[in-house]
Amino acid sequence: MEKVTLKVSGMSCGHCVKAVEGSVGELNGVSTVTVNLNEGTVDVEFNASEVSLDAIKETIDDQGYDVA
Amino acid sequence: MEKVTLKVSGMSCGHCVKAVEGSVGELNGVSTVTVNLNEGTVDVEFNASEVSLDAIKETIDDQGYDVA
Repeated sequence: MEKVTLKVSGMSCGHCVKAVEGSVGELNGVSTVTVNLNEGTVDVEFNASEVSLDAIKETIDDQGYDVA
Repeated sequence: MEKVTLKVSGMSCGHCVKAVEGSVGELNGVSTVTVNLNEGTVDVEFNASEVSLDAIKETIDDQGYDVA
């Protein structure tokens, strides 16, 4: 299991939290995803043999947010 | 038909726009509802014999936003 903290801009409200946590949380191989609105970060625990970090970043991007 | 501009705080993104426009737009008697994120306003056209201004304000409040 790997753990990463991504810097993500554009998340501003509870709906954004749900959009990111919901979409990333649905990916196979992702075990936990936690958005911190104040910090503008997304913590993700995932199994790198099942899902790539790029796929996780792309999923967040697809929701309309910029991953640093 | 009446027209009102409400000052609403807490709307910060496209999801908020959809939440407010969607919920207010579903009320019987409301013909148009337009959120302006930059101004923090919601313009509503409604038929006062079908829906009260209070009901409109309450609907916005129920979505988690403060109506001035």
